[in-house]
Amino acid sequence: MKPAVIVVDMLKDAFKRRDLPSTEEYVRIVPKIKGLLDRARELNIPIIFACDSFLENDFIFGGKKQYNIRGSEGAEVVEDLKPNKGDHLLPKRRFSAFFKTDLDQTLRLLGADTVVITGINTHVCVFATAMDSVCNDFYTILLEDCSASRNVEAHRLCIELLRQSNLSPLLRVMSSEEFLKEAAGRNS
Amino acid sequence: MKPAVIVVDMLKDAFKRRDLPSTEEYVRIVPKIKGLLDRARELNIPIIFACDSFLENDFIFGGKKQYNIRGSEGAEVVEDLKPNKGDHLLPKRRFSAFFKTDLDQTLRLLGADTVVITGINTHVCVFATAMDSVCNDFYTILLEDCSASRNVEAHRLCIELLRQSNLSPLLRVMSSEEFLKEAAGRNS
Amino acid sequence: MKPAVIVVDMLKDAFKRRDLPSTEEYVRIVPKIKGLLDRARELNIPIIFACDSFLENDFIFGGKKQYNIRGSEGAEVVEDLKPNKGDHLLPKRRFSAFFKTDLDQTLRLLGADTVVITGINTHVCVFATAMDSVCNDFYTILLEDCSASRNVEAHRLCIELLRQSNLSPLLRVMSSEEFLKEAAGRNS
Amino acid sequence: MKPAVIVVDMLKDAFKRRDLPSTEEYVRIVPKIKGLLDRARELNIPIIFACDSFLENDFIFGGKKQYNIRGSEGAEVVEDLKPNKGDHLLPKRRFSAFFKTDLDQTLRLLGADTVVITGINTHVCVFATAMDSVCNDFYTILLEDCSASRNVEAHRLCIELLRQSNLSPLLRVMSSEEFLKEAAGRNS
Repeated sequence: MKPAVIVVDMLKDAFKRRDLPSTEEYVRIVPKIKGLLDRARELNIPIIFACDSFLENDFIFGGKKQYNIRGSEGAEVVEDLKPNKGDHLLPKRRFSAFFKTDLDQTLRLLGADTVVITGINTHVCVFATAMDSVCNDFYTILLEDCSASRNVEAHRLCIELLRQSNLSPLLRVMSSEEFLKEAAGRNS
Repeated sequence: MKPAVIVVDMLKDAFKRRDLPSTEEYVRIVPKIKGLLDRARELNIPIIFACDSFLENDFIFGGKKQYNIRGSEGAEVVEDLKPNKGDHLLPKRRFSAFFKTDLDQTLRLLGADTVVITGINTHVCVFATAMDSVCNDFYTILLEDCSASRNVEAHRLCIELLRQSNLSPLLRVMSSEEFLKEAAGRNS
Repeated sequence: MKPAVIVVDMLKDAFKRRDLPSTEEYVRIVPKIKGLLDRARELNIPIIFACDSFLENDFIFGGKKQYNIRGSEGAEVVEDLKPNKGDHLLPKRRFSAFFKTDLDQTLRLLGADTVVITGINTHVCVFATAMDSVCNDFYTILLEDCSASRNVEAHRLCIELLRQSNLSPLLRVMSSEEFLKEAAGRNS
Repeated sequence: MKPAVIVVDMLKDAFKRRDLPSTEEYVRIVPKIKGLLDRARELNIPIIFACDSFLENDFIFGGKKQYNIRGSEGAEVVEDLKPNKGDHLLPKRRFSAFFKTDLDQTLRLLGADTVVITGINTHVCVFATAMDSVCNDFYTILLEDCSASRNVEAHRLCIELLRQSNLSPLLRVMSSEEFLKEAAGRNS
């Protein structure tokens, strides 16, 4: 297994939107992702931050409140997960980190055959990225404890759906602990 | 509203796979889709059949049983939904009907602003097509009674997830009856 | 070298368009391509026919005479180069055989690392396919004697331009004889 | 006509590469492009800087000298053409500014129907961008006096080739003066 870790949309705006019932779900996964990234760096696993970089008045907003606007402070990765010098930053315009981006080509250049997905929201951008990852011929792992939706029920539904989808070995749901065990053993 | 209807993967192989618990769910939606297509043709709504067209030993099979192979009889649209002369046939290699295809360009050439999605499986190809449709700047409608998963629970979970996603007006779940009422009223 | 051969737009319409000064240039390369394909099949080199498959009134026509229309007889490969059972047929909507198609994925599934391009017109579809081939990380070879433009000057200019481009080893211009020598030697 | 201007690869590295015979050709077009951009801003024509943003050791280098590396100073737009606050910056990984980018979606969001292309090198990235622009359904104009190749002969061959291609009205070659005259008259 030659994994790469993707961190989806862990951006400041998500943590300060007061129109959402709660950002508790997002806050909860920050230390989990931080632990994962620290360990991934020790194992020389590449890390890619896939970040919404929306243009104003874009179709994707559907006339609703705009957020994660290109160039704004709200579209920056949250302080606690601040990218390191060696990490990759990938601006994206839509749900999936593969949609109209060069992510597939970057992953192949990095020699990755397995894509490990974390971030928010599980049922939209994380899920779309996971599906596209499989479709781009990468083994794909969604880390249950490193992803969240703004309401816990949507996260739970999505994870249950993925378990039922029976897409293993192409797409698997696991914990960060399980993944790190597999990844650490890859050279032994 | 200028809709186009997409029929996803209503192919012979899905109706004869004996390794699946049941194709009952698939059979159930055939007359519903047929009714929709008949009415759509009366209303001059374009119809696109998006059909798996897999190459043998492709990554997407994950080493499992292969189906919907390009050029095989199993990859043909089921008899009851046989495409008309004016319909469009779109071979696809992965889940979403937009993935590495010219569907976005076809839809814009047809003048469509709304994509109406039907077929199987709700929680994989139908869902992936719906997400990509939104990401390609089309208003998107998933018809609940014209889509199915091989187990009813996966279909139910996916529909519930979409309702919770709050992506309206970009992505809506409705019945074929509701859609046809909206579509018929579009010129009045 | 693990090559795959692409035959671009050798379609009936090109050979019967009376509005063009001459189809002599096209006719001239048919036996050259035929010889190449016969030898490629002996060497188990995959062959892909990339064929215009235009929708009526599409933007690409620019209001001019329409040709290579999807489903029409004119959009079929010319008789002398008729595809064999094992060959691949790839419909395309624009110049490059990679544009909104799954060709990159097909080539990787076939294990190809080198794309050998033939067909018409050298300075439009052949050239665009060659550039996209390089950009998709394939070593690319344009066969000078198996490609043509409707006027010989455009072909000549394009070949000269490619020679000056200094894109070797990514993109090379050679004769079919030179290529077959390299390909035959690849296992020795 | 609702134009948008693209400036391709006017980056610092191109102006300091001592392994090239001369950067004279590049230097020559800087004031021409600057004049164009100043006037475009007055006319509220959107401006997009499409800039190579290569990863180290990428396939595209073909083992040759590397340049325009992501994050390096050499990959910045040259001082004399420094982007304004309202301009768009588009990192790209390959020749065409449309290749695995969201440029098509940006242009449609901006309401553009015509893409005006400038920059370097005429016969590689400028040409590839022009071809892809047509293929994405935009009327396309290549400005002869605002584009250059590192050797004047390659530029000349490419312009001559485009003139012979007879792709008008989809793709036209003109001078910046001719374009600005057309653009200024668009509202009258």
